[in-house]
Amino acid sequence: MNVQTEHIYLNELHDGSNELALRYDTVRARSIALAEPLSEEDCCVQSMPDASPVKWHLAHTTWFFETFILERFDPNFQPHHPAFRVLFNSYYNGIGDKHARAQRGLLTRPPFPDVLNYRRDVDTRVMTLLVSPLAVDAYVELSNLLELGLQHEQQHQELMMTDVLHLLSCNPLKPAYTEALELVSKPAAELQWLSLEGGVVHIGHDEPGFCFDNEMPVHRQFLEPYALASRLVTNREYLNFVESGAYENPAVWLSEGWDWVQTQQLTHPLYWQKNDDVWHAFSLHGLQALNLDAAVTQISYFEADAYARWVGARLPTEAEWEHAAMLALSSDDAQKDGMQFFGQCWQWTSSSYSAYPGYETAAGALGEYNGKFMSNQYVLRGSSCVTPDGHSRVTYRNFFPATARWQFSGIRLAR
Amino acid sequence: MNVQTEHIYLNELHDGSNELALRYDTVRARSIALAEPLSEEDCCVQSMPDASPVKWHLAHTTWFFETFILERFDPNFQPHHPAFRVLFNSYYNGIGDKHARAQRGLLTRPPFPDVLNYRRDVDTRVMTLLVSPLAVDAYVELSNLLELGLQHEQQHQELMMTDVLHLLSCNPLKPAYTEALELVSKPAAELQWLSLEGGVVHIGHDEPGFCFDNEMPVHRQFLEPYALASRLVTNREYLNFVESGAYENPAVWLSEGWDWVQTQQLTHPLYWQKNDDVWHAFSLHGLQALNLDAAVTQISYFEADAYARWVGARLPTEAEWEHAAMLALSSDDAQKDGMQFFGQCWQWTSSSYSAYPGYETAAGALGEYNGKFMSNQYVLRGSSCVTPDGHSRVTYRNFFPATARWQFSGIRLAR
Amino acid sequence: MNVQTEHIYLNELHDGSNELALRYDTVRARSIALAEPLSEEDCCVQSMPDASPVKWHLAHTTWFFETFILERFDPNFQPHHPAFRVLFNSYYNGIGDKHARAQRGLLTRPPFPDVLNYRRDVDTRVMTLLVSPLAVDAYVELSNLLELGLQHEQQHQELMMTDVLHLLSCNPLKPAYTEALELVSKPAAELQWLSLEGGVVHIGHDEPGFCFDNEMPVHRQFLEPYALASRLVTNREYLNFVESGAYENPAVWLSEGWDWVQTQQLTHPLYWQKNDDVWHAFSLHGLQALNLDAAVTQISYFEADAYARWVGARLPTEAEWEHAAMLALSSDDAQKDGMQFFGQCWQWTSSSYSAYPGYETAAGALGEYNGKFMSNQYVLRGSSCVTPDGHSRVTYRNFFPATARWQFSGIRLAR
Amino acid sequence: MNVQTEHIYLNELHDGSNELALRYDTVRARSIALAEPLSEEDCCVQSMPDASPVKWHLAHTTWFFETFILERFDPNFQPHHPAFRVLFNSYYNGIGDKHARAQRGLLTRPPFPDVLNYRRDVDTRVMTLLVSPLAVDAYVELSNLLELGLQHEQQHQELMMTDVLHLLSCNPLKPAYTEALELVSKPAAELQWLSLEGGVVHIGHDEPGFCFDNEMPVHRQFLEPYALASRLVTNREYLNFVESGAYENPAVWLSEGWDWVQTQQLTHPLYWQKNDDVWHAFSLHGLQALNLDAAVTQISYFEADAYARWVGARLPTEAEWEHAAMLALSSDDAQKDGMQFFGQCWQWTSSSYSAYPGYETAAGALGEYNGKFMSNQYVLRGSSCVTPDGHSRVTYRNFFPATARWQFSGIRLAR
Repeated sequence: MNVQTEHIYLNELHDGSNELALRYDTVRARSIALAEPLSEEDCCVQSMPDASPVKWHLAHTTWFFETFILERFDPNFQPHHPAFRVLFNSYYNGIGDKHARAQRGLLTRPPFPDVLNYRRDVDTRVMTLLVSPLAVDAYVELSNLLELGLQHEQQHQELMMTDVLHLLSCNPLKPAYTEALELVSKPAAELQWLSLEGGVVHIGHDEPGFCFDNEMPVHRQFLEPYALASRLVTNREYLNFVESGAYENPAVWLSEGWDWVQTQQLTHPLYWQKNDDVWHAFSLHGLQALNLDAAVTQISYFEADAYARWVGARLPTEAEWEHAAMLALSSDDAQKDGMQFFGQCWQWTSSSYSAYPGYETAAGALGEYNGKFMSNQYVLRGSSCVTPDGHSRVTYRNFFPATARWQFSGIRLAR
Repeated sequence: MNVQTEHIYLNELHDGSNELALRYDTVRARSIALAEPLSEEDCCVQSMPDASPVKWHLAHTTWFFETFILERFDPNFQPHHPAFRVLFNSYYNGIGDKHARAQRGLLTRPPFPDVLNYRRDVDTRVMTLLVSPLAVDAYVELSNLLELGLQHEQQHQELMMTDVLHLLSCNPLKPAYTEALELVSKPAAELQWLSLEGGVVHIGHDEPGFCFDNEMPVHRQFLEPYALASRLVTNREYLNFVESGAYENPAVWLSEGWDWVQTQQLTHPLYWQKNDDVWHAFSLHGLQALNLDAAVTQISYFEADAYARWVGARLPTEAEWEHAAMLALSSDDAQKDGMQFFGQCWQWTSSSYSAYPGYETAAGALGEYNGKFMSNQYVLRGSSCVTPDGHSRVTYRNFFPATARWQFSGIRLAR
Repeated sequence: MNVQTEHIYLNELHDGSNELALRYDTVRARSIALAEPLSEEDCCVQSMPDASPVKWHLAHTTWFFETFILERFDPNFQPHHPAFRVLFNSYYNGIGDKHARAQRGLLTRPPFPDVLNYRRDVDTRVMTLLVSPLAVDAYVELSNLLELGLQHEQQHQELMMTDVLHLLSCNPLKPAYTEALELVSKPAAELQWLSLEGGVVHIGHDEPGFCFDNEMPVHRQFLEPYALASRLVTNREYLNFVESGAYENPAVWLSEGWDWVQTQQLTHPLYWQKNDDVWHAFSLHGLQALNLDAAVTQISYFEADAYARWVGARLPTEAEWEHAAMLALSSDDAQKDGMQFFGQCWQWTSSSYSAYPGYETAAGALGEYNGKFMSNQYVLRGSSCVTPDGHSRVTYRNFFPATARWQFSGIRLAR
Repeated sequence: MNVQTEHIYLNELHDGSNELALRYDTVRARSIALAEPLSEEDCCVQSMPDASPVKWHLAHTTWFFETFILERFDPNFQPHHPAFRVLFNSYYNGIGDKHARAQRGLLTRPPFPDVLNYRRDVDTRVMTLLVSPLAVDAYVELSNLLELGLQHEQQHQELMMTDVLHLLSCNPLKPAYTEALELVSKPAAELQWLSLEGGVVHIGHDEPGFCFDNEMPVHRQFLEPYALASRLVTNREYLNFVESGAYENPAVWLSEGWDWVQTQQLTHPLYWQKNDDVWHAFSLHGLQALNLDAAVTQISYFEADAYARWVGARLPTEAEWEHAAMLALSSDDAQKDGMQFFGQCWQWTSSSYSAYPGYETAAGALGEYNGKFMSNQYVLRGSSCVTPDGHSRVTYRNFFPATARWQFSGIRLAR
């Protein structure tokens, strides 16, 4: 093999290259489309330390490609703007300094158009890279990093929606991100319990295709027999819980949850409010009467756990969830479509977020992607109505602290 | 006098009417001009609870005219937008609810153009009122309120500059509000001490023309003999203080000031920074080398008091300042121009902000304008480089807490 | 005069020496007597950062004599315990390190008996010094410092009572410091207004006898005519204020006071509580029904100011208070006894605590005694029921922050 | 069976009765013995919200017997003091109100002798109950509750030591709880790795004898093959970690741990300090030079996890720990004594504290004993040098938050 054959033109020899470029283009374009209904002001402001401005999301996802792909593969790499290395670094200590998270909303500069320019510049350079001759090894590494970058961008697409919803919810004018939905009053299905035998099961990802490092390696767990609810908890059911006085009753809460409820003076889910004696919920469609048959969402772990205790059930472990979802999805059962594993809201599990046996972090700064967050967070499974298409998997592990209540997160029961 | 003669057309009978309209137009236009170099993002964000977004300033000053003039005088008054009554109320409990101060920066809606529309609408209606027939009594009341509204707007024009400077200072890109200044290296005059005899002096406003309620009534105070510095403290002088180790020396600070310096880990004025061993200061013109001959500014009361103690002097009382300024301004002495009473920076006095003997607040919500802030604040006298023309008086009482360091506030010594 | 005659034996030549020794012994013994009803546990615990444990007060006042007298005058000085120099230093940066104020309650060691030993040791050494030969100059300095130390101890005697009252008030058992008082239902006198002409008056101390540095120098002030209430505000009157809904009405509060009332969720004075629909107050005598005719006490500046505004009056300035008290006390008017200038509770003035014209601090660490606290505090005049005999003066300036509500502090009106 | 035969005299018919009474007496006496070296002041003060005063521990454990045994079984039950029901309730919402945890140190009343009386009174009444005729069912219930109360008291005996150590550590005099230990310089054994095969193992308690509810039910888990360290991490090893700069290196910390290290400005374990260039550790024996061969202790989860990462290992899961300990203890291997499973310090596991499959809480207030703390805490296994004899089990689950560093907690590695 001579030097020449070591280099390939992605767009000639590899079937995947155009596909990858197309996928890159599609995913990146979707981020812009999500920002389209928003003003520059909407995109700049940070409503709480846990949330980030849309403009920051747009820049940070670009920084990810610039830092982990262009800087790695472009021999003539020059940063788009030297200050962006710090400004749009989220949490990678291995890269160097980072702008304080709680102050992302102070960045009125660079202005929004400059961030769009930043995106276009990086996109152009990534595209150029994709049509450049590369050694096979490098190509594999590039493809993998590019895929990681796109998955990362999709994660931020969901966060853009959760964060902008929070911002709009803080505004007394209650502006809608998008137009109101016609309420479809389709009654929720009756709750049934699926019995599972358990035993030694395999958990984790070992199929072709992308997964995050925290989904690996596949390993064995032993599950005692259990039962899983056939659908998510509805707003109607959760409303019963609220109106039973649950937010004033310590008996149904974890001790730490009860302290939190009292300190924060909580009486209902984050986006609920009662207007003229009618419960409403604020959503991307504005403030609307509560849809009683829809799945309850924007629920914290503490609320999910308390609800489960109140009805005499519990939350599933993540292994229970994964095993049941795997079985259901591989079955021929027509019923599986109604089980709401995906596309409604993330589902809290009782599992603390921790490493699978044999888990190994990547080398370098990318090793900070997942592993360092494995404390005091709980795993959510499934996906939500704002999860991008193609970004959900049965082995996918989402995670948030027990008090997080601004995500599209709801409840599936087990027992 | 019949009914008809009781009503007058402002623009016909009163010389002042056109003048008032013209003045209204001029002052209001200046606010817009100040926002001109800024983007909508810059105008929306709030960098700390004490500062407000420019958009909020533009809306609040408009709310003031709408609430205290249009609602009072327009028999067919309809609010421009019902929610604005709450959103843009600053602190008038008498008007009803108000939007939380620390959350002014979350108001990405109404969008900036809507606030401009709000201004235009109110301006049109105020102008219409100014050419309407009014009873003489009502006209006097209207003129007085209009003047108060304009003075209020001028106060906010200064705050727009102090607040946007703070916002830009938080940005690692250190963007300038306006272009850099050519440094004019004119050495500061030699510091001299003006000796004053004191005795029973008259303090407060009793001339024709506008003043705020807190400048009245005129009353007598006894001043022991004193001396006042002929100019402000310079950056060069304050730098000596900094480099003497003053920020690590409790002996020069008030006890509460020392606690504050240690808690906040302060080592220099707010906008100073040392780059490559050269002291710079951030200003509306961006980050520039420290102009050693200019007056030190953006100084808190605690810093001003500590500096005075360090050089063996003290801050003047507000009566000492006013008496000396009154004498100087009424003298023929050509030297008075160099005394920097006005136009450089506000000057901290040792006087806690309190009511003059016989002070009375206005009836209604406007009574909240000044009096309720008379605790734990210190009076500043003079005016600054961002005080609008025509908005300074020898009796003017500005006031801020002892820790406020983002204003154009500096030091004049006494002994 | 030879060297020998330069030295004197205090107890032989100076009439004052025995008197001074006697006075020392009396004052010091009173501190111990105040602790007598308390257990070692009571004396050790700190109920809030602003309050100090009784044991700490007993040790700190001893430290004062050890540091400023023994160390100064005893040529063979050895500290009683080297660690005490830091442990019992309150706020004198000039002496060196100090134990953190908020952690005074953690000092279970040295144990209480060791602190009594510390007192005895220092007392013995001070007494020895008092009978030693001293140069005349040194004797004068010693007498002055000793007197300062005794005045300082008397200040702490009052603080021991305010602080232990606070500690006991935190205990659900509501233990009394001393036995319950028989309620004497003597109706309060009718409120009258004493008119005073004002003019140029002399303020400050210039008589023989001790005063603190902050009472000097005597100087002139101009007072506009004013009127002062003939007695203090009673619990009955303040109860009307409470029951009028004043704690929910922003119109009667200073802006900062209103924020404080809301943040702290205050609805009545610190030690008031309503049991079975009857108002009670907790005091050194335990929890008793509110004595409606007694002066209201344990009131903050914000509450005093709000009450005054609510009744259409105001608080006096400290000069108004001093001038009126001086006149009343020098008159033959039998009525003066009923005026409650002293012995009931300290009386808030509207005067921020600041330096008199010409004020100078002492050299060295003792210069930290008063001057460094001259910011964001308000002056109280008079004295309270727990002020030691002989520790009140018409020129005495007590001072606390506007939110302090655990002192024996009440309200005298002016207008 | 007539009524008479239904009742039994514990001390006659049941072999266990005298034994139970004896055990009760022994355990209760040990609590008093632990307080013996302390003064009443030492026993009263609370050094941080997480720690409780010794006097409170002595009273609370008594309250437990009074509330769950005397009130339950004594038909003529009268509380020792009505206020104690609230004062000494720790966290049982089902019992009613409770005194705020952070204010336990304010309880100078009841005085220490009253708490001793409280103990004696309850002890007498419990002993009386133990010799009273009881139905068999009741006897079984009583024995179980009594055993729970004794186990509970033993838990608090350990907490008394950890809490008093923290209090003494806050004192600049560095007082020792008990006399200094002669340092035995026995080198630590070489670290070896025990390999275990794993597979489906049984976890949890199913033997005769007491266990807490959280150790049940026994259930199956699948363990992948793993290795466990043969001994605990020593001070010497941890010192290498400290001196490597680990407390300034984000790469070895969990993200939340790194935030905590920076916010708290941590640079070494809680009780370590460097005097004259020699590392010391504060312990119940006072401040002594660091014993390099002893197990490192007073370590938080974050520190334990970081150390493990730094040496390329990890913490074991609790199942891994239990399985290995069970095997080792049931082996004949003489080596097992050196493995330090018990008696040195608790050993952090990577397992978040959660319910075993099938876990059920007890009915009533006792159901609050364990289950409600199952969030955001990590399990520790083993026991420590201050764990009472007979209070350790291979299935025992201790738990603390990831930041807890004042317990006798150390590190065992796995991989």
